[in-house]
Amino acid sequence: GHELLQSERDKSSVPVAKLSEFLFTKEAIERKRRVLKVLESEKVFNKNQNYFAGRVDRFETALARAKRLRQLKVQHGWDQEDSIVANDLISEPGPYGLHESMFLITLRDQGTPEQHKLFLKKAENYQIIGCYAQTELGHGSNVRGLETTATWSPEDRTFIIHSPHLTASKWWIGSLGRTANYAVVMAQLIIGGKPFGPHPFVVQVRDLKTHEPLENVHVGDIGPKFGYNTMDNGFLLFNHVKIPHVNMLARFSSVDPATNKYVRPMSASLVYGTLTWVRSHIVLQSGSVLARGVTIATRYCAIRRQFQDRDAPQSEKGETAVLNYTMVQVRLLPLLAATFALHFTGQGMMRFYAESQKKIHGNANAASADRGAGPEETHAGSDSLADLHAASCGLKSLASSIAAEGLEVCRRACGGHGYSSFSGIGPWYADYLPTTTWEGDNYMLSQQVARYLLKSARSVKKGEKPTNDTTQILTEFLARSDMGAAFDIIGKDEDLVAAFAWRTAYLTFEAYKHRDEEKKAWNDLLVDFYRLSKAHSQYLVVKNFYEALQSSSTTDALDEETRTVLHKLFRLFALNTLEQESSEFYQSGATTVRQIILARTNTVMKLLKEIRPHAVRLVDSWDFPDWQLDSSLGRYDGKVYEDLFHRASELNPLNSITVDPYPESSVLFKKDESRDFKSKL
Amino acid sequence: GHELLQSERDKSSVPVAKLSEFLFTKEAIERKRRVLKVLESEKVFNKNQNYFAGRVDRFETALARAKRLRQLKVQHGWDQEDSIVANDLISEPGPYGLHESMFLITLRDQGTPEQHKLFLKKAENYQIIGCYAQTELGHGSNVRGLETTATWSPEDRTFIIHSPHLTASKWWIGSLGRTANYAVVMAQLIIGGKPFGPHPFVVQVRDLKTHEPLENVHVGDIGPKFGYNTMDNGFLLFNHVKIPHVNMLARFSSVDPATNKYVRPMSASLVYGTLTWVRSHIVLQSGSVLARGVTIATRYCAIRRQFQDRDAPQSEKGETAVLNYTMVQVRLLPLLAATFALHFTGQGMMRFYAESQKKIHGNANAASADRGAGPEETHAGSDSLADLHAASCGLKSLASSIAAEGLEVCRRACGGHGYSSFSGIGPWYADYLPTTTWEGDNYMLSQQVARYLLKSARSVKKGEKPTNDTTQILTEFLARSDMGAAFDIIGKDEDLVAAFAWRTAYLTFEAYKHRDEEKKAWNDLLVDFYRLSKAHSQYLVVKNFYEALQSSSTTDALDEETRTVLHKLFRLFALNTLEQESSEFYQSGATTVRQIILARTNTVMKLLKEIRPHAVRLVDSWDFPDWQLDSSLGRYDGKVYEDLFHRASELNPLNSITVDPYPESSVLFKKDESRDFKSKL
Ligand SMILES: Cc1cc2nc3c(=O)[nH]c(=O)nc-3n(C[C@H](O)[C@H](O)[C@H](O)COP(=O)(O)OP(=O)(O)OC[C@H]3O[C@@H](n4cnc5c(N)ncnc54)[C@H](O)[C@@H]3O)c2cc1C
Ligand SMILES: Cc1cc2nc3c(=O)[nH]c(=O)nc-3n(C[C@H](O)[C@H](O)[C@H](O)COP(=O)(O)OP(=O)(O)OC[C@H]3O[C@@H](n4cnc5c(N)ncnc54)[C@H](O)[C@@H]3O)c2cc1C
Repeated sequence: GHELLQSERDKSSVPVAKLSEFLFTKEAIERKRRVLKVLESEKVFNKNQNYFAGRVDRFETALARAKRLRQLKVQHGWDQEDSIVANDLISEPGPYGLHESMFLITLRDQGTPEQHKLFLKKAENYQIIGCYAQTELGHGSNVRGLETTATWSPEDRTFIIHSPHLTASKWWIGSLGRTANYAVVMAQLIIGGKPFGPHPFVVQVRDLKTHEPLENVHVGDIGPKFGYNTMDNGFLLFNHVKIPHVNMLARFSSVDPATNKYVRPMSASLVYGTLTWVRSHIVLQSGSVLARGVTIATRYCAIRRQFQDRDAPQSEKGETAVLNYTMVQVRLLPLLAATFALHFTGQGMMRFYAESQKKIHGNANAASADRGAGPEETHAGSDSLADLHAASCGLKSLASSIAAEGLEVCRRACGGHGYSSFSGIGPWYADYLPTTTWEGDNYMLSQQVARYLLKSARSVKKGEKPTNDTTQILTEFLARSDMGAAFDIIGKDEDLVAAFAWRTAYLTFEAYKHRDEEKKAWNDLLVDFYRLSKAHSQYLVVKNFYEALQSSSTTDALDEETRTVLHKLFRLFALNTLEQESSEFYQSGATTVRQIILARTNTVMKLLKEIRPHAVRLVDSWDFPDWQLDSSLGRYDGKVYEDLFHRASELNPLNSITVDPYPESSVLFKKDESRDFKSKL
Repeated sequence: GHELLQSERDKSSVPVAKLSEFLFTKEAIERKRRVLKVLESEKVFNKNQNYFAGRVDRFETALARAKRLRQLKVQHGWDQEDSIVANDLISEPGPYGLHESMFLITLRDQGTPEQHKLFLKKAENYQIIGCYAQTELGHGSNVRGLETTATWSPEDRTFIIHSPHLTASKWWIGSLGRTANYAVVMAQLIIGGKPFGPHPFVVQVRDLKTHEPLENVHVGDIGPKFGYNTMDNGFLLFNHVKIPHVNMLARFSSVDPATNKYVRPMSASLVYGTLTWVRSHIVLQSGSVLARGVTIATRYCAIRRQFQDRDAPQSEKGETAVLNYTMVQVRLLPLLAATFALHFTGQGMMRFYAESQKKIHGNANAASADRGAGPEETHAGSDSLADLHAASCGLKSLASSIAAEGLEVCRRACGGHGYSSFSGIGPWYADYLPTTTWEGDNYMLSQQVARYLLKSARSVKKGEKPTNDTTQILTEFLARSDMGAAFDIIGKDEDLVAAFAWRTAYLTFEAYKHRDEEKKAWNDLLVDFYRLSKAHSQYLVVKNFYEALQSSSTTDALDEETRTVLHKLFRLFALNTLEQESSEFYQSGATTVRQIILARTNTVMKLLKEIRPHAVRLVDSWDFPDWQLDSSLGRYDGKVYEDLFHRASELNPLNSITVDPYPESSVLFKKDESRDFKSKL
């Protein structure tokens, strides 16, 4: 294995370290090295039983790691970035996960200064450990349908938190099952019998000393999952639990205890900001999530040899690395291209987010407040917030689908060994999967994008001036409605990008026709909306990738050869996507049938060949330490078989039992040394 | 939940019991009830800790179950069919799995009468427990590359079994890790220094009394996997282990101990028969494999309510069942259609197989024997064996991909709760996944199909008369090469089927052009071959489904309404598939662009609406007992939330530990009653 990977690396001169620095910055890479060194030296982070242990043991280890990590943070003075890096390296969800993310964020963003003092301080010091309890057994996506109530009791100035039905039970709440003693609970606010919709309340759920559930609180872990088993997702039921007035997070809305009146929220924008940030962050992560699988599969397929090439000359008589088979290349290399595409798109989203936050905070006080409406109701043509919101929805959906489904493609590309946990892909994939469902189910988010594009279409149809990229491409499309398109998709990059824009515009106006002119029911258009959202988001990815390669920061940082390789990746990603969606490209007239055939049979096949020699160095540039990947197949040194063998025969507790194999005998294990085995490790 | 499912069932009058009988026969359904009753009453088969237990515990339980199952078979005199049903109901791979399948089959098919007496008898009585050891660490697909050697030693008339390198270690061998004491080992036969390719040898690996590995045998379990963790897949290394002459399975080839000469195999057809049967069986199973997921998701989505329909009249004010959303329908209902399509196709394959076995056995003695060549080298146009072989390869690949990927679609359609193990989909999916890799990797099998179609094209091009369906459709295509096609795909079923045939023929002649005329390298055509294989196999499925509905056994057995519903499922499956592959249909001229647009935007959407009311009854007709599904979401009575809650709060061992949540404290579990909990269950 070792020499094979070396010779792969010799075949290309892509400067790995330089490319890594360009992708992540030198500082980030040094940070990673520094944090890794600390983690590697701590026994509790040793991963060698991760793939073997059962749920209770894994949870126990995860808790030990979470605690130690917190201690290390304090000890080494690690900042937020350092912690993120540490979590990435450890690569498993842990029992403090939701405390450190949504609990702290919600307290910070939605609490008043008084509440910060009361709750946030303690939470930051881990004197209280919290979670974010929104979803219920009966309702997830539809937050307005939540059944938990928070009834204002004017007499004693308290809220009564109550779960009226079984389906009102909070469910899926990360860190709640065993760990948290506090929760931010989303509940329907009721004042004087009148409902005011879901609001956040801070509720203590376990005793701070004994850690037993408080009276009238029923709380526990919801059980095993497809992945995420190091996390204690929990359930939570309340039987008329009283909390003081100050426990309703009151930065945006509150109840005036003097008048018993509801005080309306200040600014919708700020509330939606968090969701947009979270989704943008999912986009940014998706590239590296996928890159783990691509790194593992690419390295392994460069080493794995199977069959001789039927047409190979006699001189190359040995078995062929499976990465040489075009059927393996066509599965892996477009995904390799996608990792870069998603990375640049994620960076673009984060920039976009930062810019729009600046604008909003400028206008925060001026903004008209209408919490009920949601951003899709705002005026699209002129509103960069709506633009950002839609982009974050569409791209979250597209990017997490590409990453999740791509990981499974990578796993399967490894053949039988891909199925072993030691491949490192399966467990990672299983933990990542919920990203397609949470923070907006990927199918449902497409409705938000469609809504935004419909608004944009209306504005353009009315003749309003384009105010952002979306209205711009719609306007251009309309302007050419008597001429049609003529894009040189294979010859010119700009035209390739423009063809994606054209398709989006075409589908947008089709949707507009169905909805606004033919008055079709919303529900009958959901499938069209999903396609529309996907088309728009693919356009955004292609455009972001293209612009990243054009930008001066790229041309300054990278040598000609590297840029050429990245450019090929851009073309592979765009043309391969176009080919997969080809019917929409024909139907919209963005391309001819002939162009698609050429793209598929010539250009894409040629690009695969050209990128092939650089594949290993390109995945190297993602710079995953072996410790992070925890994969036999993806080892940097290529010692795949040695490592598989070592883990199976040395680390595997099942091998310390001896069975009685005969059906008549009721003895199952004649000898069971698995406990000794464990303690020896 | 209960009333909701009831009202779903009230909306349709599809006669569930009758449809089940039609699909499976009355006898099979009664058999299932009978076996189920026995299993349900045995404590060892109680599934309530399946989703919770760790690897060692799960394996222990699986072993207990395997033993008990064997005892029950003897006790109740269960036949082969009964055992299959029992295994289906239990739904987990078990430690006797490979003993009962490949070990027995290989001994039976490839052993001489003497060897039957020596090994098969004992194996049938579980005096020896075996496995089938072909794959090695370094080689799977490429069987000819196996490195384990069996060297003939003329002096003492033995074979010396040896693993010359680490990569020669047998790997992935089911039932070997802990359970088996025998193995059929595929090893390179070497006589007088000359290699004769891989052959099967019977090798003892563990002591029959102590169950310890024999001397010079290194054997163990390969560790945890993405699924299949109740099975002990194993590794196996030999250090010059001697076995007697009689241990080489000698029905088809052998070494003559007198002359030290290799005796050539008798008939290739018989050897290939088993592989074809196994693949055909995978096709047959794929329908019900997928149907489990579809049953669970359909029932759950009929109960799950989320949001109000924006356009619904005021009278239907409550929340909508998510199955009413077209975006949910378009994911689930084509899969529902696919379950039936695959079921009928599987039945067709098994009939096809039985017929061709009859023919072969008629000709067996006459057949010219050439083991080296493999069926793809035989004359395609006139050979139903080659036809069967290709169909089994292509359909195995297509059907297992549809089933595996469909299960994940079903899981995701259930939103957050789909991620819980209690959904029952995830664990089932994880166990099924290797089917896409074993018995011929799905990507690689496509090369076999392409090879066959190329041969067929050559025969047709030469003007030979069509001798089977494949050469028939190729001939018809050529005959119309000056006229093109004009299929009324939406108006006429025959034309819809013909459009699929047309596309296959078009792609076949494209491949022929590239390979035979343009002399493109084989490797450069793999992607085209994969598409070709998929196209051909989709054609076969559509055709089988169509023919099943036409056949008199269907029209006799089912009433008009049920046939109408099945007919809609046929159209949904065919048109939805056509739409997904639309670019190939345009390019081949099988349809116009307009037809595809109409199919997608009108016909498919209309079919979804029409099938929707029957969805629950249709999945009911698959007749899965709750005990088999082991799913909260898929319960027949719809008590989803009650069951989720019960499992989480009553059966979950993690809830019997109490943690110390604070990072400074080194105590992890303050209280751990998980052991008591287990013993109480
Ligand atoms: C591992 C994990 C961790 C989680 N952690 C937390 C946590 O810490 N805190 C918390 O509050 N929640 C958490 N959740 C819950 C998560 O946010 C929800 O599961 C998610 O929002 C999806 O909602 P749902 O499950 O209700 O799906 P549903 O809305 O019930 O979706 C079911 C199906 O219906 C479809 N559907 C629903 N509505 C529509 C519509 N209007 N149009 C078309 N289709 C529709 C969906 O596409 C889906 O196919 C977690 C979930 C998981 C899996
Ligand atoms: C759960 C499980 C149980 C198993 N049980 C048994 C058992 O009991 N006994 C036993 O003997 N084996 C068993 N196997 C092994 C199984 O049969 C092999 O894993 C399977 O045949 C695939 O072979 P491979 O792993 O060598 O894949 P590889 O051939 O290494 O495939 C790797 C990749 O290369 C590609 N590839 C390889 N060759 C080509 C080519 N010529 N053209 C194009 N692409 C190519 C493949 O598509 C794949 O993407 C089991 C496997 C699993 C996962």
